[in-house]
Amino acid sequence: MRGIIKERLFTPGPTPLLMEAQARTLTATLHHRTEAFRQLMRETLENLRYFFNTHNDVLIFTSSGTGAMEGAVANLLSPGDRVLVGTAGKFGERWVELAKVYGIEAVTVEAPYGHPLDVGEIRTRLESDGPFRAVFVQATETSTAVAHDVEAIGAVVRKYPETCLVVDAITGLGTTDLRPEEWGLDIMVGGSQKAFMIPPGLAFASVSAKAWKLIEKSKLPRYYFDFAKERKSLAKGEASYTPATTLVVSLHEALKYIRQIGRENLIANASMLAEATRAAARALGLRLFAVSSPASAVTAICAPEGMDSGLIVKEVRARFGAIVANGQGSMKGKIFRLAHLGYYDAADLFAVVAALEIVLLKLGQKVELGSGVRAAQEIYLQRCA
Amino acid sequence: MRGIIKERLFTPGPTPLLMEAQARTLTATLHHRTEAFRQLMRETLENLRYFFNTHNDVLIFTSSGTGAMEGAVANLLSPGDRVLVGTAGKFGERWVELAKVYGIEAVTVEAPYGHPLDVGEIRTRLESDGPFRAVFVQATETSTAVAHDVEAIGAVVRKYPETCLVVDAITGLGTTDLRPEEWGLDIMVGGSQKAFMIPPGLAFASVSAKAWKLIEKSKLPRYYFDFAKERKSLAKGEASYTPATTLVVSLHEALKYIRQIGRENLIANASMLAEATRAAARALGLRLFAVSSPASAVTAICAPEGMDSGLIVKEVRARFGAIVANGQGSMKGKIFRLAHLGYYDAADLFAVVAALEIVLLKLGQKVELGSGVRAAQEIYLQRCA
Repeated sequence: MRGIIKERLFTPGPTPLLMEAQARTLTATLHHRTEAFRQLMRETLENLRYFFNTHNDVLIFTSSGTGAMEGAVANLLSPGDRVLVGTAGKFGERWVELAKVYGIEAVTVEAPYGHPLDVGEIRTRLESDGPFRAVFVQATETSTAVAHDVEAIGAVVRKYPETCLVVDAITGLGTTDLRPEEWGLDIMVGGSQKAFMIPPGLAFASVSAKAWKLIEKSKLPRYYFDFAKERKSLAKGEASYTPATTLVVSLHEALKYIRQIGRENLIANASMLAEATRAAARALGLRLFAVSSPASAVTAICAPEGMDSGLIVKEVRARFGAIVANGQGSMKGKIFRLAHLGYYDAADLFAVVAALEIVLLKLGQKVELGSGVRAAQEIYLQRCA
Repeated sequence: MRGIIKERLFTPGPTPLLMEAQARTLTATLHHRTEAFRQLMRETLENLRYFFNTHNDVLIFTSSGTGAMEGAVANLLSPGDRVLVGTAGKFGERWVELAKVYGIEAVTVEAPYGHPLDVGEIRTRLESDGPFRAVFVQATETSTAVAHDVEAIGAVVRKYPETCLVVDAITGLGTTDLRPEEWGLDIMVGGSQKAFMIPPGLAFASVSAKAWKLIEKSKLPRYYFDFAKERKSLAKGEASYTPATTLVVSLHEALKYIRQIGRENLIANASMLAEATRAAARALGLRLFAVSSPASAVTAICAPEGMDSGLIVKEVRARFGAIVANGQGSMKGKIFRLAHLGYYDAADLFAVVAALEIVLLKLGQKVELGSGVRAAQEIYLQRCA
């Protein structure tokens, strides 16, 4: 019997859509050069600052998150500048590629896949190998499911008045406590298809006063991702170029929902789901890929010895419609990843863990049915008394 | 922490909506007196006959299912007619009320709540107490989660050429094997908000040749629910009165999905979910309300001794957004009901069982976490190898 199978996204972006925000776009016949849109934009910007936990400017671009990452490079730096990049996975490596494209020398501090960046090494590099115009890191490295200690990195970088800290918080936002002013996160980048609960297409960047000073003096070419120009436009409630109007409408609606839930609760929700997922994996005898500093955005689970993780991904989808992510690059076939960022709840997790148990059993593993779910339930009970 | 909680319907109607069918209505700017609508209606009627598993006419009314139930009474009967009603719950009693309103004498064969009708008793009444113009029953009594043996009842009634069998299959359709011609189910009533996966607002009635003969001679007043008039309109692809056009569009789309899944698979899906729910309830030490002939449409579970089932309903909703049904009438506070009709899958069930375990535990019951889920998973594995 093959009955009903609903599709369920468990990937770290795109993530499940908030239907109320989707529905709102259906009646949005806005033109972007009208007062109605400006009003919507101003409210959206205010709620974005709430979500970013900052009074810094937050810019919006119609692009993927990578666009705002490129913007951070192109707006902060000048030819001849050197940067320090912390890499611990695919997205860390993206900072290196971006620097290279703009002819910027990138010195790297590398952590093995599955491990967080060594803050001491970043400190040493800054002391012995500078000056660096900027330090680029991830808040959470999605490819390995690791959280970096951006608070500690911020404390190191803020001692250098001519060095900005740029944080790719694309999956960190809404899953991790982030404090741009307090911790000195000068530029923080986000993307709409993550904890924002809306489709891909918008990128965000918060920019500190310290970063604006560097931006004024920087000489790399930029046009579409010109931060200063965008700040001027947004001050009028406008975008420099035609924005993805329906996505802005979705965002406006989703941010209202997020304010209602509360930023701290959204983060605690992801953290609870991540902890419950780790407990479930351990109960099922599965190894976690990120042990010392796991992210709350996504959990990377190692396939059982000798099994291709792609098999699990395939079977969970075929049997239960659950779309989980394989590993990327060299981790493909070795891990699979379950996301917790955005519109996920405890019942979603119970369902996918029960599904995973069945799939592992069908793939020949020894599984005590219900034991992973029980471990997840126990974490739920500890966290949601 | 109170994080994200998604609302999930587990009630026996309305049921979860098929989003593709909902979305289709958004671009439906149809007028009902156009060829485009007639074409849509004809395709819908053909697919309705597929879903009803019949070559009989299937009529569509814009009303709740109760409208088509009233139509069956008003179209079949004449003043002075007597009818036999099998009652075993709230919906059986509705047939009695309908007869009374039209001044028709209703003789009842009653089964205690939680039990199916005694077919032998129906046979005896027909033999000793007739003539009856019609016999009214449910395929599945939603209020008690009992399935009646309509095949056996049909075999009894078909011996009487002047007596029609009318089956309220509102929750039976799509959850139970029903064969109108083979079993002699002369009128079979359905409603859109059940296994059809669309919102409330449309009612259906299939009508056999035997029923049409009685309808021709019947004298009770009817106007909106005039079956013969509706048949004539539908033959032209029209409705006698303005139909709920967007619901017809939804229905057209949902029936395409249902054909794709297959009627038999949809029924097997409900049957698997029902069996898994019963296994989960037993594993959690809960008593089932319908033991000898449980329906696949919905499962009625008794609250633990001394506990109001309303507490469970309230907590499952508050903690997990899952909307399950309390008992109706005298069963309120004693049972709660989980539905399986329509757009539900195995992962939905695992989620709600895990949620139920937590709620029972929080309400002071002794619960082995994961044990209900495991029982459900085991049924899944037996049925979906």
